[in-house]
Amino acid sequence: MMASKSEAPSERTRAKRLNEYARYDRETLHAILDAAPYCHVGYVLGGAPVVTPTIHWREGDEVFWHGSSASRMIRKSEGVEVCLTVTLLDGLVLARSGFNHSVNYRSAMLFGRTEAVEDRHEKLRVLEYFMERILPGRWATLRPPSEQELKATKILKMPIVEASAKVTEGMPKDEPEDYDWPVWAGVVPIVSEVKAPHADPRNLPGIAMPDYVKKYRLGGA
Amino acid sequence: MMASKSEAPSERTRAKRLNEYARYDRETLHAILDAAPYCHVGYVLGGAPVVTPTIHWREGDEVFWHGSSASRMIRKSEGVEVCLTVTLLDGLVLARSGFNHSVNYRSAMLFGRTEAVEDRHEKLRVLEYFMERILPGRWATLRPPSEQELKATKILKMPIVEASAKVTEGMPKDEPEDYDWPVWAGVVPIVSEVKAPHADPRNLPGIAMPDYVKKYRLGGA
Repeated sequence: MMASKSEAPSERTRAKRLNEYARYDRETLHAILDAAPYCHVGYVLGGAPVVTPTIHWREGDEVFWHGSSASRMIRKSEGVEVCLTVTLLDGLVLARSGFNHSVNYRSAMLFGRTEAVEDRHEKLRVLEYFMERILPGRWATLRPPSEQELKATKILKMPIVEASAKVTEGMPKDEPEDYDWPVWAGVVPIVSEVKAPHADPRNLPGIAMPDYVKKYRLGGA
Repeated sequence: MMASKSEAPSERTRAKRLNEYARYDRETLHAILDAAPYCHVGYVLGGAPVVTPTIHWREGDEVFWHGSSASRMIRKSEGVEVCLTVTLLDGLVLARSGFNHSVNYRSAMLFGRTEAVEDRHEKLRVLEYFMERILPGRWATLRPPSEQELKATKILKMPIVEASAKVTEGMPKDEPEDYDWPVWAGVVPIVSEVKAPHADPRNLPGIAMPDYVKKYRLGGA
């Protein structure tokens, strides 16, 4: 039912125990992290799990996300163990039995302890990197960040050390004897797409839509 | 930056503490749960969070998901507190300052204790409901489930009691003085779409693509 790419990372104690996830190679993992426009971050609050969506980005072997310094999610997930999961649904897989129905998807799970990016210069640098990866050229054209805005923004990062990925693709895998069952089987593809941008009616006269907006595609430049 | 619909549920102790999430009305919450083709379920394993993607469905005031009885995620999330989160990304919101950039999205978080659906008849009924909601008419045409398949499938359910939703939409909300900054602002819409289905090359001759496949749209019938 699934085609998974594999290579053992150096540390993977918890991921290893999660038998529904495959081992991964770094290239596959990075590609999934980069293609996913957002992630879900899980952390433990008072002994119970909380799962919050947020926008992440990757630079090298680290993932980053950010939010308001006042946000409970950001405050409670600093310096603690989190699980960051991204998932891209690629299609429904319709088999000849209910049991063999499935979905094609790409997913990555990262486990680790987060750390805040504290240095003012480094905060600016990683925020610029984040925007430039999605909308190259935009950062320099914006109203620059104020000191107050920078203080009000907390950036968390986590090394990609303990991680796993899963990629499933292709046609249904039915029981051999079911291929004679007279029902349509196949795959219904699902894709996330960018549509024509809408300009803010409050844009100044003569401000044209930049090329990086016209060319924006999911997964970055 | 956000337009949130609200109405207090009877119990919402933990959701209440999550100040980044708004209160919700049942209709908004159900609409988000139904529109999202999959969710992320968070649970605690050995004191640390684990976040796993899975396909969920809703019937009335309960959500369901299922998997192999042997799956660690399914085994470890039975009878424990979980957080089930769904998120639909609707667009990038490009503001005049980096700080005011955001995304438009719809998200719902449910908190609660899961329970397995144990009764054989009820398991069949909820699986049929699940498929009929997505692909009406398909269930009766499939090779019927075997007793072994039914035993190998675990279905978890959770009442929708403690929950919250958030809906953000519209144009950037910039600082009043930034509207004179000469940069393009606006929204880049993102949508998930169904593409033309691919028939399994191993389909029997003369098996036509059913209407429910041709008509399938995200969010159910």
